Amino acid sequence: MTVRKIAILGSGVIGASWAIVYARSGCDVAIYERSEAFRDSAMQRLESSLASSASLLRDGETVQDVLARITLHDTLEAAVAGADFVHECIVENLDSKRQIFAALNDAAEPEAILASTTSSFPVSHFASDLACRDRCIIVHPATPPHLLPVTEICPAPFTSAEVSERTTAFMRECGQIPVRIKKEVEGFVLNRMQAALLVEMLTLLREDLIDARDIDAIISEGFGLRWAFLGPFEGVDLNAPGGIRQYLERYGFLARDRGREYGLGDVLPPETIDTLDDYARSRIPLEALPEKVAWRDESILALRALKAERGSVDRA
Amino acid sequence: MTVRKIAILGSGVIGASWAIVYARSGCDVAIYERSEAFRDSAMQRLESSLASSASLLRDGETVQDVLARITLHDTLEAAVAGADFVHECIVENLDSKRQIFAALNDAAEPEAILASTTSSFPVSHFASDLACRDRCIIVHPATPPHLLPVTEICPAPFTSAEVSERTTAFMRECGQIPVRIKKEVEGFVLNRMQAALLVEMLTLLREDLIDARDIDAIISEGFGLRWAFLGPFEGVDLNAPGGIRQYLERYGFLARDRGREYGLGDVLPPETIDTLDDYARSRIPLEALPEKVAWRDESILALRALKAERGSVDRA
Repeated sequence: MTVRKIAILGSGVIGASWAIVYARSGCDVAIYERSEAFRDSAMQRLESSLASSASLLRDGETVQDVLARITLHDTLEAAVAGADFVHECIVENLDSKRQIFAALNDAAEPEAILASTTSSFPVSHFASDLACRDRCIIVHPATPPHLLPVTEICPAPFTSAEVSERTTAFMRECGQIPVRIKKEVEGFVLNRMQAALLVEMLTLLREDLIDARDIDAIISEGFGLRWAFLGPFEGVDLNAPGGIRQYLERYGFLARDRGREYGLGDVLPPETIDTLDDYARSRIPLEALPEKVAWRDESILALRALKAERGSVDRA
Repeated sequence: MTVRKIAILGSGVIGASWAIVYARSGCDVAIYERSEAFRDSAMQRLESSLASSASLLRDGETVQDVLARITLHDTLEAAVAGADFVHECIVENLDSKRQIFAALNDAAEPEAILASTTSSFPVSHFASDLACRDRCIIVHPATPPHLLPVTEICPAPFTSAEVSERTTAFMRECGQIPVRIKKEVEGFVLNRMQAALLVEMLTLLREDLIDARDIDAIISEGFGLRWAFLGPFEGVDLNAPGGIRQYLERYGFLARDRGREYGLGDVLPPETIDTLDDYARSRIPLEALPEKVAWRDESILALRALKAERGSVDRA
């Protein structure tokens, strides 16, 4: 590992989940938790989450091996001493972020990467005036990160390129899938994509076009079976013999019309089609698409078998 | 089964897939295919799709057992003779739909349900003037239906309630998950939901906020792992201790802001929140949510193991 010691600020749901990601990858993890009650419950919460996700432990490792790498601290200073990478996971409040990053500016090691797990605030909103600002970066996960690998990396314009690259590489070493947000934007991208789908679902409900249960089924018994294996661009690449370029030529009007309704202008200019074609063909050549279709179909069948086996815990 | 004999019009990708759905459920299936070349290749195409989806056959049945229930015909009249349920799966062209439904009006059995698999046109666009119109209905699947269960059912205002109910019940008997579209609308709901997500993804690309590969990963290594098991409403119901009502009180602003930007007004009026709370609580009571969270987490872990096993066929 390029990073050996991690400090995590806050032992809530997200902080504890990150502690598991790092500790099961072999890092030492020091958690700063100011609440005595949270400190007292932390090890038990960590043990329980580790036990229930034991399939993700490295070969030959036990829950206790991983737990042994995690320590709890009642001061920021004690947690960050010697840490190469600090991950702030405190309450989602801008003033609190400002205060704790100012404290990190003084207390953290001079070369340490200073990451925030915030889902809302770009780095520029809370660290612009600090000497350490070139080491500050957003590392925002899908929740919880010890189960869902995708992780947004969003540097500020003043974040050094080397910090962005080290952070991205470190996430890969930990088994996460880092995605890079190229410009600072409130709320980043992950939640924005979910919100776009929810807006459509809420509009369908408000128009009384379809019941909530049926809207959910369109995803969980339809698109979700594909998207478990394929991103939506990858998915539509398989829906025309000529790949995504041909798909968008045939069916792009659906997105284009909807984009115009929303006042977004043309969401499918020729350069976007070129970009998507380059992307799709860099993954797999056109002549191999039938092989990928067969792989997708077998994957869906395996998932259906898994779902049948998992059943449901719903009452109705 | 309430339906014993099916006629399918057209043996293309969708027609052949529907033939599999019906024949593996025990129905006799007569396919009308006007192209000699397509008729000649049909049995081999069906056999290949059946063999690769053999895990969905009924216990004790073979591919040949299912194939033996399927016949091919070069006239509409021969295929629809004696059929309780006709499924039109011809080219996506409004004039062609008008012509073939006019022919069905004369040729089909007087009680037969006359379904169209169209992804675009409501029944009113092609069957309003026909005597048989009260038996006409849209049955539009996720593609391909023999792998993805969700299926849109969209009656016209003049479709009889009994036809809607028999169609819905029949889809359930075939192992599909029918969802009811309550009003006639072009393009129905399923593709509209995918388009909403694609619009957002295309906008992110056009703004150069994130690369296409990373956008795909946000679904396939993030939300897709949840949505394989849970619809998005069900999913957010687990993201706050008080369920979806509390989630929307806390984070609904994300969808509300986005809806306003799109000129959609308030996508989250109080009655929509009430509807969603009623829906979520009818599935599972609040006190059982921790059990569902544990089930979700175990399901995600099982899916991650499956994905690791499936690997990838991409070149890069």
